[in-house]
This record gives sequence, C-alpha cells and structure tokens, in this order.
Amino acid sequence: MNGLMMDRPLLISSIARHADRFHHEREIVSVTVDDPLHRTSWGTVIGRARQLANALGRLGLKQGDRVATLAWNDHRHLEIYYAVSGAGFVCHTINPRLFPEQLIFILNHAEDRWLFIDPLFMPLLEKLAAQVTGLEGVVVLTDEAHMPATNLENVHCYESFIAAEKSDYEWPDLDENAASALCYTSGTTGDPKGVLYSHRSTLLHAYAVLAPDVMGLSCRDSVLPVVPLFHVNAWGVPYAAAMCGAKLVLPGPKMADGEVLYRLMDSEDVNLALGVPTVWLALLQYTEKAGKRLDKLERTIIGGAAVPRMMIEAFRDRHGVEVRQGWGMTEMSPVGTVNTLKAGMELLSPEEKLDIGVKAGRGLFGCELRVMDDEGRELPWDGKSYGALQVRGPWVCSDYFKLEGNSESHTADGWFGTGDVAIIDAEGFVTITDRTKDVIKSGGEWISSIELENVIMSHPSVASAAVIGIAHEKWGERPLLVVVRKENANPGKQELLEFFNDKVVSWWIPNDVAFIDELPLTATGKIKKLDLRKQFADYRFPD
Amino acid sequence: MNGLMMDRPLLISSIARHADRFHHEREIVSVTVDDPLHRTSWGTVIGRARQLANALGRLGLKQGDRVATLAWNDHRHLEIYYAVSGAGFVCHTINPRLFPEQLIFILNHAEDRWLFIDPLFMPLLEKLAAQVTGLEGVVVLTDEAHMPATNLENVHCYESFIAAEKSDYEWPDLDENAASALCYTSGTTGDPKGVLYSHRSTLLHAYAVLAPDVMGLSCRDSVLPVVPLFHVNAWGVPYAAAMCGAKLVLPGPKMADGEVLYRLMDSEDVNLALGVPTVWLALLQYTEKAGKRLDKLERTIIGGAAVPRMMIEAFRDRHGVEVRQGWGMTEMSPVGTVNTLKAGMELLSPEEKLDIGVKAGRGLFGCELRVMDDEGRELPWDGKSYGALQVRGPWVCSDYFKLEGNSESHTADGWFGTGDVAIIDAEGFVTITDRTKDVIKSGGEWISSIELENVIMSHPSVASAAVIGIAHEKWGERPLLVVVRKENANPGKQELLEFFNDKVVSWWIPNDVAFIDELPLTATGKIKKLDLRKQFADYRFPD
Repeated sequence: MNGLMMDRPLLISSIARHADRFHHEREIVSVTVDDPLHRTSWGTVIGRARQLANALGRLGLKQGDRVATLAWNDHRHLEIYYAVSGAGFVCHTINPRLFPEQLIFILNHAEDRWLFIDPLFMPLLEKLAAQVTGLEGVVVLTDEAHMPATNLENVHCYESFIAAEKSDYEWPDLDENAASALCYTSGTTGDPKGVLYSHRSTLLHAYAVLAPDVMGLSCRDSVLPVVPLFHVNAWGVPYAAAMCGAKLVLPGPKMADGEVLYRLMDSEDVNLALGVPTVWLALLQYTEKAGKRLDKLERTIIGGAAVPRMMIEAFRDRHGVEVRQGWGMTEMSPVGTVNTLKAGMELLSPEEKLDIGVKAGRGLFGCELRVMDDEGRELPWDGKSYGALQVRGPWVCSDYFKLEGNSESHTADGWFGTGDVAIIDAEGFVTITDRTKDVIKSGGEWISSIELENVIMSHPSVASAAVIGIAHEKWGERPLLVVVRKENANPGKQELLEFFNDKVVSWWIPNDVAFIDELPLTATGKIKKLDLRKQFADYRFPD
Repeated sequence: MNGLMMDRPLLISSIARHADRFHHEREIVSVTVDDPLHRTSWGTVIGRARQLANALGRLGLKQGDRVATLAWNDHRHLEIYYAVSGAGFVCHTINPRLFPEQLIFILNHAEDRWLFIDPLFMPLLEKLAAQVTGLEGVVVLTDEAHMPATNLENVHCYESFIAAEKSDYEWPDLDENAASALCYTSGTTGDPKGVLYSHRSTLLHAYAVLAPDVMGLSCRDSVLPVVPLFHVNAWGVPYAAAMCGAKLVLPGPKMADGEVLYRLMDSEDVNLALGVPTVWLALLQYTEKAGKRLDKLERTIIGGAAVPRMMIEAFRDRHGVEVRQGWGMTEMSPVGTVNTLKAGMELLSPEEKLDIGVKAGRGLFGCELRVMDDEGRELPWDGKSYGALQVRGPWVCSDYFKLEGNSESHTADGWFGTGDVAIIDAEGFVTITDRTKDVIKSGGEWISSIELENVIMSHPSVASAAVIGIAHEKWGERPLLVVVRKENANPGKQELLEFFNDKVVSWWIPNDVAFIDELPLTATGKIKKLDLRKQFADYRFPD
C-alpha cells in the first residue's frame, strides 16, 4: 500500500522557481572579463535563465542532449546551470585545466552539441576545434563590446544570444531521474570518465548539504564558492544557495588571487567560503603579507585534498574562522563526509580539536559508508581497522556515462568503491589513509603510502616524496621511498629512514630510498604513481 | 535519458541505520509513567526498535497494515515509530484528546490491528473497546511492575513483548512510496480524515526541516518536542533529530506542566523546543511566577495556532529566546512555512521585527504556495491581495485514506486547498487572515472574521468572541459580532462596535452585536463556527 502524498518530482527547475519567488532580490556578485564587479540577483539570474531556455529551444536539442561549458564562476555560468538542466538538457561542465587531448576526448565522448565558453578560453578552443567533431555552435560568455575575434564558425555572443528572448518560459515536467548534468573525472590512468547526475540526485544532495552540520546554509549567508562551477557542480553550492536564498559571490577567473579573494570577502560580507587547500594557501599567504584579518568570514569548507593541520590552525587562531574539512568525489555529487564537532567535543582542548579536525569528517545522512578488508568482509568502526572505503546512496553514481555495465568500481551488492583506504572511528569520523592502488601490502598487512609521505615531507631536506610498493620475496611488497631533494640539500638514505623512528611502527619504515630529480604529476598536480611504479619496475631491494 | 545515479529508496529504516551508526551514544531522555527521568540513547532506541520489529514479525501483519498508538512522547513511542514504519507497516498515531466517538471511528476506519497504549489511557480504551471491531491485541507501554489491571483480552506488557527478541533485524527493502504513517485530522465538521504519509514524503520533509532557516537542527542540539508524537509526527522532529543525531528530551504526559518543562530544559540543556502557543503560555506563566529565566533555550518553533505578539516579545525580551513561528497542516507533514528573518532584516527595530514575527513565515523549498481569488486566478504577492491559500509539494497529501478520488480539497491542476485565507508579501512571508469557510463576503470583497475577532478580544469587557457572516440583501453577507462578556462586565453594543474605529477599514465593522453565554468549542478548543452559524440561522440584521 502506497502513501497518499503528491507525486511531485524533484526537479532543478523547482529550485529556480523557488529562488525567483522567495529570494528575488538576493544578490549575486560576479567578477567577469567584461565587469570587475557585476551585481545582479536571483530573480534576474533566473529570469535570464528562462530567456536562455527559450534560446536553447530553438537549437533543435532533444531531452538529454549535452550542452557544454568551459567557464569560470560567474552569473552567466549560473544561468546556464539552471537553463540547460531546467529545460531538460544536460549541463556538461568541463575543466579547462585538463590537457588538450583530454579536452578533445571529453568533448567528443560527451557528444556535446553546443559549447558556452569564457572569452579567456577561446585561444584554447581554437587549438582544439579541428579535432572536436560534434560541436554545432559556440556561445561566448560576454557582451558584444568584449567579443574576441575568432576564425571559428557559428560563434555567438551570449548577451545577444538571449537578448531578444522572452523571460516567460514554462519549465518542462521531467522525470526526476532524468539526467541533469555531466562531469568527467580524470584519474591518474586511462581516459576521463563521465559522471551523469540526475535531477533527483542533485536535489537530495542539495537538501543534505544545507543542514547545519554540513554547509549550514541560510538566506542570511553570503557565500563564496572558490571551488569552480566546472568541478562537481561547485560541490552543490549553486543549487543549495538558491534553495535557501543565500547571496553568492563568484570570483570569475580570480580563483587563485589571494588579494582579490580577500577584497571580495571583505566588501561582500562573505561569511562562508568553500575551496581546495591550495587556494586557501594563496589567501592565507596574502593576508599574512598584507597584515589583514578575515573578520567577516565565519566558516570555510575545504575539500578536494587533505587539509593540513596548520591550515586549520591558521584559520582558527589567526582569523577566528571555523574550518570544516570535507571529503567526497565527482562520483558522489560530491559530498560524503564533513567535519563538524559532535556534542561534548566543544570541551576538548584546542589540540584535541585539531586531532579531530584533520580527519575527513563524518558521514551525513544519505551517504552510507563501509570499510572492507581484502576478503570483502566489513571492518569495525574502531578507529584502527583500515580497508577499502565503499559508499552507497542516492547521490552516488551507479555507472559511468557510455560505460554502463563495464564499471569495475561497483561491488556485486551495489556499493561504489571509492578507491580510498580509510579508518572509521566509533564516532563515525573517517580518516583517509591511502588510495587502494597505492597501499603497500606487506605480510598480509597494509602500509599507508600517504602516511609515510606525510612524515618524510616534514624533513627539512625533502622537496617532495612518494612511497611505492616494490615486490619482495618474503613480504609480498615492501615500501620504497622516492625523494626529490631540496636544492643544495644532500641527506643520506640512512638519515631519511631514521627520520621515521618513533613516528610510524617499525615495520612500516621503507626498506630503501631512491633519489630522483622530479616526480611525474597529473594536470591537477597529483603524483602519477603508476608512472613512478613503471619507472621503478626493474628496481630490486638490496639484500 | 536518465542520470546514472544509484536507485536508492528514501526509507525511514535508513534514518534508523544512520542514527545507530553515527550517533549511537547520543542521549534520549524521557518522562514515563514508570520512570520520571529515563535515560537511553539513539543506539539503544534503534536496537530496541529492531527487537520490536522482530516481535511485530510474529503477528502476521502484511505490508501496509496499521499499528496504532495512543501514547505520550517517550522513548518507547519513538521505538514504535521506527519499528512499525521500518518493518513496512503503518504507524497510526491517535490523538487521545479526541471525543470517544471520534476515537472509535478512527480505530475502526483505520482498521488498526494492534494498539500500543500508555498505561494512563487504559481506562479510556476500556470504555471504547466494545465498539472497536478489528483490534487483535494491545501492548501497554510499561514494564511488568507498572502493568495496570484490566479486563481486556490479549493485553501485553511492552517490555516483556520485546524482551526475548533478538536485536538483529534486516530492515526490508520497501518502495519509497510505501505508506509509513497515518494521522487523522479532525476538522470542525464531519468525520476525521486520515492522512497517509509515505517513506519518501517523510524523508524529504525531514531533510527540509533540518535546514538552518527551518528548524536548524544539528547533532549539538538538545531538542524538546512538546508537540506530541501523535500530532503530525511531532512536526517531523523524531526523524530530523535522528538524521542529524540531536539529543531528544521527551516530556511524556507532562506536556502542559510549566514547571516540569522548565526543569527538563534546564537539566537537559535544551536549546530548541517546539510546541503550540498554549503550552508556551503555561511555561511563560510558570517562569514569571517562579522568577526563572530560560537561560539555555536558544530558539523555539511555535505552530498549530497563530502566535500572539506578546508571546514572541516575552520569549525575546525576557528570556533571550528566538521565536520562529511556523504554519502547516496535518495534510502537509506538516511544515509549509517558517518565520526567520531574511538578510538585512537584522537591522530593523525590535518593533519592526515583531511585525514580521507575527506572520506565519515564509515558504521553505519543497512546498509551493499560491493564493487564488474566487475565480481561480492567482493573486500577486503584494502584501495586500488575499485569497484562498493552496499548496503543492512532495510532502502534501494527494487524497485522504479510503476516500481516494472523493476529495474536494484538491484543485483540478493538483494543488491542495488549505482552507486558509492568506496574504503573501513580496518577500514571501505569509499572513493567514481567516479560514475560507469563515470569511465574510461583502459586496464582492472579503472580510476576515479572524482579524475582527483579534481586535475585539483586546476590549477589556470581552471574554471571548466570534464573527460570522449573516445573509444581507444588499451586500450578500455582513459580519455579526457574537460576544461572551466577562463576568461583571456589561458593555453596550455601540461601545463594542465603536472599538473597531481606526482599527479596521470602516466597511469591515460588524453590523450588529449578539451576546451569548458561551461559544461552542471543538475537542481541541477551536470555535465551532458551523454550530454558531446554525444557532444564528434565523437571525436578521436590524434595518
């Protein structure tokens, strides 16, 4: 027997309608190429999204067709989010920082029919265009005055593209499981893979992140997502902010500019900012140099990579800002855990709070977590058992786009293997200790390459380092420490290995050290361990 | 084309699982008949819910069968919530304050198979039992030591009922649209009507109320729902609190006892409390008399009836407590609007803030609102146009139980008519001005009976009052003021009518006054205007 409740689908267009009705005047401030401080509102953004939806309606697109973006965070990109998904198409946000061959692969694999692009990326597109097959037209996100010259065909100016359109538009009634957005994830190996979000997954994720223990978003917040709109839907902020009517401050191409970020935060009363550790490093360095304090900022959500303890400390002690570390993946919409203190923990010492703060956070309702051993048995949440972290929930991917049924990333019982190795403690806080493919399996036990790298990175002579597993007759695998020395530093192998004493258990200490000039890195700055392992394929430990 | 996201149903059992895993130790404190201050935790409550689910499994119930409760707010009632719904049955919470004939009607209409009952309500049940047809068994919510003597058959003690059961239980995979709970609403006319919630509607509503601008629930909150678990699922608190791991403080039968409520708030660090105006009146009166201040309480959500301005003021100015007025209905799960200030409103004067605070609040994402005129045209949100308030959303009922297709409460285009007359202002704040059936239609315009009643209630000689529409040759209808005078007071008609001058527009002022000894009231204390209209059916205005 079913309940007798209205069968209303969860659609992105209902967020648009809500923001328009209840938060019409609430501000959206953007840095764009044509305007250093553009001011608009949710009502105007949604009105222009309806104009854009009318324009899209003339292009002959079918439900589910992909419309791509190569763009920074600004109001026009936000309009595209609502117009494309709301009208029943798929908003495919592309990371412009990928290698050109990846961009070509992604545009072709997604079969993008139209591309909305920031003027700044036109030179990039011009280089790729000949190899991109299905693109029918390009819309440049600017006004006529700032249109770049180009030899490409069928290139339109965004402002002219929508100018003549009516702002009346009837959002279509879609199935809530319809695809709404597409985002490719580029691992360290193989071709990028597309994660295809639905209206339902997007809305449930947005509801979940609104909660006080996650982002805690209200209509009184002024929010600066420094995480790009092309990066997993900016962690859901464009949807959650519209749901509650928060003010959005969008830094355009100024993502990495500490001074611009500081000025935006100060002038726009930003009390919540979100980003990856590297952008916050730029901001913290700027404030230190300029002698500024982040007076208005109350909290920041940091994800995308582990947050260094000193960053949490600097925000807290020098700026009075609460850091909430989060963990997630493109495959998870992305939020899986967020770090906020539980009741009673407010009584802990500042150091004890940091011990918790450096963890990846605890699970939010809607994303189930489990940790599995090599035999597929679930491990206890005891703060010491570590294994493969798996997740399940309505905003976790079931497959990759056009690879349906071929994915090895899901278990037979329907969980997604994150590729992370984790420990969960009794309170539900997760610590990511490694990637499953990087973990070193020694005598049936796992050694965390990341933990070893974190230790050695604090050695004064080490510029960068990686630990990889090397085949070992007796133990199966043993760790090899690969080090890039700092200029003019010349530490010996023994000195480096002794540095691990009392910092890790003795059997974790690497068997040997190899020195190289530089580590192979991905486009997004991660160490390509696969390449490193290839490089050391013939390496053998000394007897 | 659909998204590629996991097809995970929204189920109440997943809330149980989440609370058990992430908030196992978080406290649940209850006042019960057998223990004045019972302490348990989410982990234990969910473990006992699994035991109860095993016990229910032996009763031969089918998916969707109704299991009723007649009980106060305590941990056992909470266990029943999770066990019954999680196992696939329907948790039918009954309001023990209804008239006996209504209780008999409801138990029979719902076809309840088992009843879980507080010992305090056993005498009530004994009076009704002969007329209740389908009940197979009764479980009394206490331990053996406190079991009441009874002549009824097949009566069990709750603690013994679950004691031998294992706490392992595999929650079944249900369709998220499956019925989860049933609650009857008793209007002023006709038989009570059943609202049948689904797992999906319950979870979406719980997600929505977690948000900072609604209840703002976090795991650090200690929450006292003085709103009963038998009243629209205590506004969703039992679910939302488990979703985020909030502490619950459950006052059992002490709902109306200002002193007990104060002591619970103080000893259990309650920072969020929810209830109807009448219980808060009892609390405020107690604190005033006893010279106490609600130091730990931070905010209270008040709904169920309009919140008097002086109540908001008393909480704010004497106790430093934020009042959030809410509006909703049993048919709406129930939350439709909640009153929190928007950005910039913090700069208003205390009086201006009160002007906003007395409104019913603004819509939250997930519940659409519209106001319609007599011809079914939508009215603007201008702060002055009033009409019939209609709502739509995934937690709004589509029909009443066993009355499917017969409901006159829904429009052809799928909106639910709330029966309220409302004004919505440009910021989306709703003011409820009347019930549609009580509004007086004079010369094509509407006169609010409630507003007139509010005015005259502040006259020093008026004990209670109601305004009803009386047929009028020229105007269609005109208002008649019906007054119960205070003891020893003897105001004249003219004096009362003149009291309206400058308080309402002149054409709203009633045409006449009638004095009576008492107003007809419903079981829940509302004026039975239908009876009053019958009483004055032959009344004619003086020429």
